Amino acid sequence: MYRVFGMSSSGNCHKVRLVLENLRLPYEWVEVDTMKGESRTVTFLEMNPNGRVPTLQIEPNLYLAESNAILHYLGEGTSLVPHGRLPHAQVLQWMFFEQYSHEPYVAVARYINAYLPPDSPRRADLPRLRERGYQALDVMEKHLEARDFFVGEAYSIADIALFAYTNPAADGGFDLARYKAIKGWLARVKAQPGYVEMASPS
Amino acid sequence: MYRVFGMSSSGNCHKVRLVLENLRLPYEWVEVDTMKGESRTVTFLEMNPNGRVPTLQIEPNLYLAESNAILHYLGEGTSLVPHGRLPHAQVLQWMFFEQYSHEPYVAVARYINAYLPPDSPRRADLPRLRERGYQALDVMEKHLEARDFFVGEAYSIADIALFAYTNPAADGGFDLARYKAIKGWLARVKAQPGYVEMASPS
Repeated sequence: MYRVFGMSSSGNCHKVRLVLENLRLPYEWVEVDTMKGESRTVTFLEMNPNGRVPTLQIEPNLYLAESNAILHYLGEGTSLVPHGRLPHAQVLQWMFFEQYSHEPYVAVARYINAYLPPDSPRRADLPRLRERGYQALDVMEKHLEARDFFVGEAYSIADIALFAYTNPAADGGFDLARYKAIKGWLARVKAQPGYVEMASPS
Repeated sequence: MYRVFGMSSSGNCHKVRLVLENLRLPYEWVEVDTMKGESRTVTFLEMNPNGRVPTLQIEPNLYLAESNAILHYLGEGTSLVPHGRLPHAQVLQWMFFEQYSHEPYVAVARYINAYLPPDSPRRADLPRLRERGYQALDVMEKHLEARDFFVGEAYSIADIALFAYTNPAADGGFDLARYKAIKGWLARVKAQPGYVEMASPS
C-alpha cells in the first residue's frame, strides 16, 4: 500500500491525495509537520534527500519525491495522463508552469500570509508575490476561456496540479472575483469523483 | 521543421538545443533577446502567453512552452525518456527538482552576476541564492556518488535538464571544486553525441 508523507494543509501534498482519492487507490497518510522541521530529520532525509513533502513510499526503501512526478506515477495508464505525445507534453507544460510561474508566488504568498506572524519581515515580499501570482492567474484565465480543462478537454493531472494552490488563493490575499473562467474550472474540478477539501492552515 | 524561439546564452534554451542535436533532428533557431523585451511583444505572447523562452514551434500555430516539457516531447520514444512507469516518474522527479530547487538559485545567481550591472540592488540576493544553490548541488552530488546518470544508469532528459545550469554554475559564483561526482557526470554529459557548448553571456 502506498504511504504518503505529507502535510494536510499543503497544496503540493493535497494534489497527491486528490489523485489517490480520484483513482480509489488505498494509501496511508503520514502527517509531517514541516513547520516543526519534521521534513529535515535524518530519517526523513534518507527517504528524500531534498527534505520536502510530499514524498511517496512505493514500497519499503523505494521513495518518489516532487508532487508532480508523484501525480504522473500514480496517474500513468489512466485517463488522468493522456497517451498522445503532444497532449502528454502539454500536460507537463502546465505542470512545469505550475511549479515555476504559479506555486512560487501564489503558494508562497499563502504561506507568508497564513503561517507567519503578523510582524514577519517576509510580509514585505507580498506585493511582488501577488503581482507575479496575478500574472500566472491571467495566463490561466485566458487559456480556460476557451476550454473546460487545461489539456484536451479532459480532466488530467495538470488540472489537479494547478487546482491545489489556485483554489485557496484567497489565503494569500488573491481576489479571484474577476477570474470567471477560473471559477468555472474550479467548480468542475470539485465535481470530479473522490474530491476532498484541503485542510486549512491551523 | 521545428523552430526554436530561444536565447543562446540561456540554459533553459540550451537544453532544447542539446536534445535536438543529440537526436539529430533538423531545426531552425530564432534568437530572442529577452533582455530587450523580445519575449513580451504582442507577437510573442500569441505564441506563448507566459512570455518565456524557449518556445517550440511544432507546426504553424502550434507551440509548446516550458523547457522540460519540450525535452519530453522531443525525447519521447527515444532512449532519452525511459519507458517504465517508475523510471519515467524518476526522470520527471529530477526535472521538477531542477525547475523548483535548482534553477531559481543556480540560474538566477548566474543571471544577476553575469547580466546585471555591478551596482544592481539584486546583488544583495546573491548570498541567499548561493546558499540554496549549494543545497541543490549537495543533493545532486550525493545522488551521483553512486551512479553515472540521474536515472537508471542511462543518459536521459533529466541529465540534460540538470546539466544546463550546473555546467556554467561558476558564472553565478558557485565553486564546483568539491563536487567530484558532479564533475565526473558533467564530463559524461559532454561526451554524448551532438554535444555543443552554450553561448556565454555577451
